[in-house]
Amino acid sequence: MKILLIGATGLLGKAISKELEGKHDIIRAARHNADVKVDITKPHRIKEMFEQVGKVDAVISATGNAHFGPLEEITPELNEITIESKLKGQINLVLLGMSHVNDGGSFTLTTGVIMDEPIYQGASSAMANGAVKAFVKSAATEAPRGIRLNSVSPTVFQESPEKLREFFPGFEPVPLSKVALAFRKSVEGVQTGKSYEIY
Amino acid sequence: MKILLIGATGLLGKAISKELEGKHDIIRAARHNADVKVDITKPHRIKEMFEQVGKVDAVISATGNAHFGPLEEITPELNEITIESKLKGQINLVLLGMSHVNDGGSFTLTTGVIMDEPIYQGASSAMANGAVKAFVKSAATEAPRGIRLNSVSPTVFQESPEKLREFFPGFEPVPLSKVALAFRKSVEGVQTGKSYEIY
Ligand SMILES: NC(=O)c1ccc[n+]([C@@H]2O[C@H](COP(=O)([O-])OP(=O)(O)OC[C@H]3O[C@@H](n4cnc5c(N)ncnc54)[C@H](OP(=O)(O)O)[C@@H]3O)[C@@H](O)[C@H]2O)c1
Ligand SMILES: NC(=O)c1ccc[n+]([C@@H]2O[C@H](COP(=O)([O-])OP(=O)(O)OC[C@H]3O[C@@H](n4cnc5c(N)ncnc54)[C@H](OP(=O)(O)O)[C@@H]3O)[C@@H](O)[C@H]2O)c1
Repeated sequence: MKILLIGATGLLGKAISKELEGKHDIIRAARHNADVKVDITKPHRIKEMFEQVGKVDAVISATGNAHFGPLEEITPELNEITIESKLKGQINLVLLGMSHVNDGGSFTLTTGVIMDEPIYQGASSAMANGAVKAFVKSAATEAPRGIRLNSVSPTVFQESPEKLREFFPGFEPVPLSKVALAFRKSVEGVQTGKSYEIY
Repeated sequence: MKILLIGATGLLGKAISKELEGKHDIIRAARHNADVKVDITKPHRIKEMFEQVGKVDAVISATGNAHFGPLEEITPELNEITIESKLKGQINLVLLGMSHVNDGGSFTLTTGVIMDEPIYQGASSAMANGAVKAFVKSAATEAPRGIRLNSVSPTVFQESPEKLREFFPGFEPVPLSKVALAFRKSVEGVQTGKSYEIY
């Protein structure tokens, strides 16, 4: 399959790449240092990416920034960071990319555990996760030409910096190799509308 | 209690009003024909509303517009209607209203069944519902001064126009009086971070 992987240069993106390369043809996208440059917060850049890349069999989003901060310090403006990137950025990949995906292809987006198990300073990110999960579930029922949509909700990665892992007290970190398997399951499997929870 | 009810003039808002009036002092807000005028898509109008109304014990949102349309016709621009109103509009009521709510007060926002059971043309609305539910769950863990946050997820109302009810085939419509009870439970009860599902 020809797979477009957005966020390919990040921790998760590299793990997904490692899991899928060899068997598939992977096109790596990110804002910097990638086969294709894209900024998912800009719809016209998403359109340009799909035009440049042509038809693909799978689109994987392993990206999405979110604002982390105490609830009482989240302003509408700070919340917008999350909305523009992790929420709209990922959803616009679907809205703008659908016609560029081959029959029977798939989209796999990334959410995260904190929509189910809140952490301190995580309300804005939880919002985006909940939005993406619900959108995927609903959109999957209407996707044309046998195209499937799933999302993967990982808990904190073993490989994440300790500074980040400290925000997940008592959460059992998972190895990125295990999270990457869920993306393979989504891309090569048969399910649609599913949230794969890797907790 | 002094309760600020946004969307007070709508189907749901009127039912909530009926359930709570007598026992509580209700301030009704909407864009038109209400005690206080507000447009939740405009943060500065939300701020003005809270300044005008002063401290309250509960904020209820019974509003939020969403775009309904077939997945393949949802553009980023049309999806923005939902993001501005049902998603950000409701969340900004919390972000901008927190300091105007008395100790031990509450916020209750509105989501909807289609995040759990998709309907045709419902992907954008499902997205907002998922966002609001997850935000409420997470924000509830950080709310100061004993302030609680819940959301209510109704299925289609018995009183909704037949044109709308037809989009919910096989869904058992609920009377608005039953949905309104969940808002009383949220406002007068003890739970926080909860999604009350009235299905
Ligand atoms: N880290 C964790 O423990 C954890 C746990 C659960 C869920 N997640 C989720 O997993 C996803 C990836 O996390 P990660 O830790 O792998 O992040 P990361 O290492 O920071 O990688 C992010 C990737 O996305 C790209 N990127 C960032 N902003 C972009 C934009 N606007 N447009 C296009 N590409 C963009 C980055 O490259 P450029 O900067 O060059 O664009 C990079 O390739 C995120 O959604 C995160 O919330 C992470
Ligand atoms: N109808 C159903 O069967 C159903 C089922 C599940 C969930 N819901 C949800 O329940 C909520 C209320 O639905 P409803 O059927 O009662 O709607 P409705 O009858 O159309 O009432 C909407 C209310 O919100 C106000 N409003 C609309 N836009 C506003 C804005 N930007 N700022 C401030 N106020 C605004 C309206 O007054 P103005 O126009 O004067 O502003 C009105 O008071 C919505 O979130 C809806 O998605 C409805």
